[in-house]
Amino acid sequence: MSDSGLRSFYLQDIPLDQALEHFRHALTEAGLGSTMPAERIPVEAGLGRVTAEPIWARISSPHYHSGAMDGYAVRAADTQGASDRSPVQLKIGEKAWYIDTGGALPSGTDAVIPIESIEPIGSTKQGRALEAIRVLGPVTPWSHVRSMGEDMVATELVFPAGQVLRPVDLGAIAASGHFEINVLRKPRVGIVPTGSELIPPGTNPEPGRIVEFNSIMLAAQVEDWGGVPHRYPIVPDDLERIQAALKLAAEENDLVLINAGSSAGSKDFTATAVEALGDLLVHGVAVRPGHPVILGMISNGSHPLAVPVIGVPGYPVSAALTGEIFVAPLLRRWTGSQPERPGVLTAQLARKVHSTAGDLEYLRVAVGRVGSRWVAAPLSRGAGVISSLVRADGIVQIPAGVQGISAGEPVQVHLYRSVSILENTILVLGSHDLTLDLLAQFLAQRGRRLTSANLGSLGGLIALRREEAHLAGCHLLDPASGDYNLSYIQEYLPDVPVVVMGLVGREQGLLVPRRNPASIAGLQDLTRPGLRFVNRQRGSGTRILLDYHLGQLRIEPSLIQGYEHEEYTHLTVAAAVASGAADYGLGIHAASVALNLDFIPLFKERYDLVIPRTHFESALLEPLLRVLESAEFRQAVEALPGYDIEPMGRIIYESDG
Amino acid sequence: MSDSGLRSFYLQDIPLDQALEHFRHALTEAGLGSTMPAERIPVEAGLGRVTAEPIWARISSPHYHSGAMDGYAVRAADTQGASDRSPVQLKIGEKAWYIDTGGALPSGTDAVIPIESIEPIGSTKQGRALEAIRVLGPVTPWSHVRSMGEDMVATELVFPAGQVLRPVDLGAIAASGHFEINVLRKPRVGIVPTGSELIPPGTNPEPGRIVEFNSIMLAAQVEDWGGVPHRYPIVPDDLERIQAALKLAAEENDLVLINAGSSAGSKDFTATAVEALGDLLVHGVAVRPGHPVILGMISNGSHPLAVPVIGVPGYPVSAALTGEIFVAPLLRRWTGSQPERPGVLTAQLARKVHSTAGDLEYLRVAVGRVGSRWVAAPLSRGAGVISSLVRADGIVQIPAGVQGISAGEPVQVHLYRSVSILENTILVLGSHDLTLDLLAQFLAQRGRRLTSANLGSLGGLIALRREEAHLAGCHLLDPASGDYNLSYIQEYLPDVPVVVMGLVGREQGLLVPRRNPASIAGLQDLTRPGLRFVNRQRGSGTRILLDYHLGQLRIEPSLIQGYEHEEYTHLTVAAAVASGAADYGLGIHAASVALNLDFIPLFKERYDLVIPRTHFESALLEPLLRVLESAEFRQAVEALPGYDIEPMGRIIYESDG
Repeated sequence: MSDSGLRSFYLQDIPLDQALEHFRHALTEAGLGSTMPAERIPVEAGLGRVTAEPIWARISSPHYHSGAMDGYAVRAADTQGASDRSPVQLKIGEKAWYIDTGGALPSGTDAVIPIESIEPIGSTKQGRALEAIRVLGPVTPWSHVRSMGEDMVATELVFPAGQVLRPVDLGAIAASGHFEINVLRKPRVGIVPTGSELIPPGTNPEPGRIVEFNSIMLAAQVEDWGGVPHRYPIVPDDLERIQAALKLAAEENDLVLINAGSSAGSKDFTATAVEALGDLLVHGVAVRPGHPVILGMISNGSHPLAVPVIGVPGYPVSAALTGEIFVAPLLRRWTGSQPERPGVLTAQLARKVHSTAGDLEYLRVAVGRVGSRWVAAPLSRGAGVISSLVRADGIVQIPAGVQGISAGEPVQVHLYRSVSILENTILVLGSHDLTLDLLAQFLAQRGRRLTSANLGSLGGLIALRREEAHLAGCHLLDPASGDYNLSYIQEYLPDVPVVVMGLVGREQGLLVPRRNPASIAGLQDLTRPGLRFVNRQRGSGTRILLDYHLGQLRIEPSLIQGYEHEEYTHLTVAAAVASGAADYGLGIHAASVALNLDFIPLFKERYDLVIPRTHFESALLEPLLRVLESAEFRQAVEALPGYDIEPMGRIIYESDG
Repeated sequence: MSDSGLRSFYLQDIPLDQALEHFRHALTEAGLGSTMPAERIPVEAGLGRVTAEPIWARISSPHYHSGAMDGYAVRAADTQGASDRSPVQLKIGEKAWYIDTGGALPSGTDAVIPIESIEPIGSTKQGRALEAIRVLGPVTPWSHVRSMGEDMVATELVFPAGQVLRPVDLGAIAASGHFEINVLRKPRVGIVPTGSELIPPGTNPEPGRIVEFNSIMLAAQVEDWGGVPHRYPIVPDDLERIQAALKLAAEENDLVLINAGSSAGSKDFTATAVEALGDLLVHGVAVRPGHPVILGMISNGSHPLAVPVIGVPGYPVSAALTGEIFVAPLLRRWTGSQPERPGVLTAQLARKVHSTAGDLEYLRVAVGRVGSRWVAAPLSRGAGVISSLVRADGIVQIPAGVQGISAGEPVQVHLYRSVSILENTILVLGSHDLTLDLLAQFLAQRGRRLTSANLGSLGGLIALRREEAHLAGCHLLDPASGDYNLSYIQEYLPDVPVVVMGLVGREQGLLVPRRNPASIAGLQDLTRPGLRFVNRQRGSGTRILLDYHLGQLRIEPSLIQGYEHEEYTHLTVAAAVASGAADYGLGIHAASVALNLDFIPLFKERYDLVIPRTHFESALLEPLLRVLESAEFRQAVEALPGYDIEPMGRIIYESDG
């Protein structure tokens, strides 16, 4: 425990730059502001390690005068005056010595005559049993010789301190006579998961129990950033046990990450434990996601305030971003490595976002190049939605105090993926269908990445109008004609030349629990009292389909319990039914099968891809069109329940805009 | 052994693209043309691994409806009509249940009221011993709830096959209910060094013996490219033993690299051994360095032609480039990873190069941004000069048939380092001095890389005139004035505004073996019969100094034995004396100390930095100027023998061009 005057005067909910500065200051005070101490390792273990001190050549390379070709080492002076007409004869073992390439020049010799340039005298077998060689011209001193130090001379600087060692660097170090080198020790990072609700991976969780995987993610981040992670067992929400675990981790590591459980109790326990063992510096940082970050310094058992502690919030997205914001810069400083930046890119925001006042927000975005512009589509902002971070191509930082950003505004995206990958990314907005997942899988083998964000069918058409996607998935019933999509395209995309290509026919129907306990037969049951419906969001094709048929049946939506409960995908509708949150919903057959529900078929509909002509004809989309023609893909889609591949690849409609 | 009709019909010295195509064909025939088979590993071991098959979510995330805040789970319907004036009271355990963030909603509830929004009735201690809560307004269904599947829904595609897994990806996989995953097995690569002249690292080599380090370098390359290297012991040049080693390595690995020794015998042994065990496909590829590459397919003990073999040439640069050209693409195909390309850059070649007819040449270059242009300075082309590969910022490919490239011509550089590193690189051409090594070391700590190529003092001034360097090291004696550099600058850089900054004063003198066995006293001894001199190259300051004093003493250069033996640095001159190749040479004091020679001081001279004004005032060079002022650097230079720091940092001269 520390006697420092700072104790208990921690800073609460402060801006990020202040938190970082405060942490940096405490680290410097503790003598932890620069690189790790050195350790000695064999050269062969040096890949990716960082030199702790300059390496000076111990020996020269080559460390002797060496033959550059197979041939005879001679004294150049002995060949002076040699010519075709008066060749010079040199006796083996007296005036000429055979050496292989790389062989040492015998003392007194200063040139090599390649074996193909001499005339042998005596046996020629292997060129070794000769008596003498005949030389037909003079040789220059040092010809065909690699002179000592040609590559490196002893005492020369091979590498300065701070060099990240690559394969060839290890070769050069070995060539300069070193078998062991001093490199920066890798920082040891202890990761302590806390929370009574957590269970270790390997067991299927009950409701209320969560598989502890933040420590896996944090450990992989630490490894990525050059540290050696050590995951500790899960600690339940108990102040004494948390404090004991933190103490142990601090004794065994250079840095401790303590991952807070989600319970109210555990949130306080971390801060209290840090206070008890040292200094709590910061409690809460004004950044989203990741608010409840804790920063502190605790004892390592022998010195107070010797080990930094970072309290990582429990939500996985918060945890991962806390790693990037707080752990990465610290490990980079300790390991002496440059920050790796795939770059920053200016893109056009595809959808308006409102920002949380007072917090710096890290907004995850999908990025694609649509025509000549980069587009950034905001992804889910939930701190628990780890798939948003998986799908993120980059981060847009929205500063504290900014109310929001309008659609179409330019934003700076800090990229997670290289521009070359993003240039091969097909951005699909609009309605989502399970076959898009399959399509993504097939395209991955053909050098294309398919990224989709579900905006509903209408949202997709609007995105195409704003040039924010390469294509849109669409299944909008036109009540007047009974056909799909065309009237909407004429209305929403009057000026955009598009190609409408069929993807699949699919069954829509009611998703109900196994064995249909409420004996639901069709839409006429929607107003039956006590039954809870789960709806799709406005603008989705399924919602338009429902509203059309409700109109046909003259059913008043306000009489349907749950009509206002909106979900964004077929699968989340199915999940709501499977979990008992709703008694039934409208969706596609495959979603019912996926979640083991019963399915009451009602309608057949066509799901199309709407593709602006410029993209239809682009090299980017070419592999996609080829996948639609491939037998493997067609088979994979046909294997899904309720799908009909008849429309697949058929051009339904073309407009000139 | 194989019965294939191809046996013995290998291709000799063919162009690179044909060799690659031939190899690819043989691999495809053997069923080795695509990715490795899968292996099952725990999720936590998955960092950087590549998915072997699509991963579909096994469970939803969250897998139950979960509270998004600490509070009370209720049925939204029970709160309808609640208001300030007529609050609704809900009894704990009957109509309201406390849950932590992340807790499961009890059956029948569909909303969470945050703890700060209720009025407690009963004890408030920890909020748990309450009897009831009072609600002052209606709540919407599903408010403050993370509904099941919000993140991922069971059966959803989490990753397609071929995904390189990052830390957050491991989190998402664990969240989707997987504890083990199928990833591509890492290819095992056996590395067999051969050569009777080789000794393992850890011993100091005698002349003619070479420390075997190619296998260290190749193993690190394999590791870098996603394989698992296995280094075998050194095999002496003996056909039977080489064949046995190759056979064993093929049984234990997916790919074998056999590194040929340099002896004439061993070069043939590899090809013979490959032929004996399977098919020799290619023997010699028209690429420089790296000519004697061998490609073949041999038996793994159970199947003929099941294991590819690459015969890697013995020179280290050839070995490393063979790795890049032949091993890397194969491992990338097997591991399903994208080629990583730091990029290609167009630069201006700083020096004319002649090319070897008939071969595709891989020319190593140093790259710097000088003003608005990129400059590529060719480095040593020797296949044994591994430092050239260490210092290389990229490779320029000179196609077979191209005679050469003139200075100033644009070339495409395939980069080894990122543009951001190259933008922080200070390119110093001209005379080399040991203090430049120290300067490089100090600058590395200040975010700058110093790259130098030794062109001699005059060469440096010419490079500045052609705008190919940021500064030049220069020590050119003006016989007329007795001063240094200024008259040369006026002659060679009449139109370039420069700042001449002093670096060091240094002693030049004769480097002789310990205890001066030939009793050399000064320049007057240069013509003594039987003594061999080692000279510096024309254009170097030391050569100009020598020639000046020879003129003063009226000594005829042609009478000096060894006058035509030119070396390019002080250290290589010292090395020549140390090795006995010469009896004495002219150089600086520090070089004699470095190689344990005696030193006969003759002259003092000033070594300056010549810096064009545009660079002098640039942010790039600012840290360099600061290093020259630093006490640590001055102390480090003073510690070198024969150096005087008096001129350091002093502006000697400024011109307006």
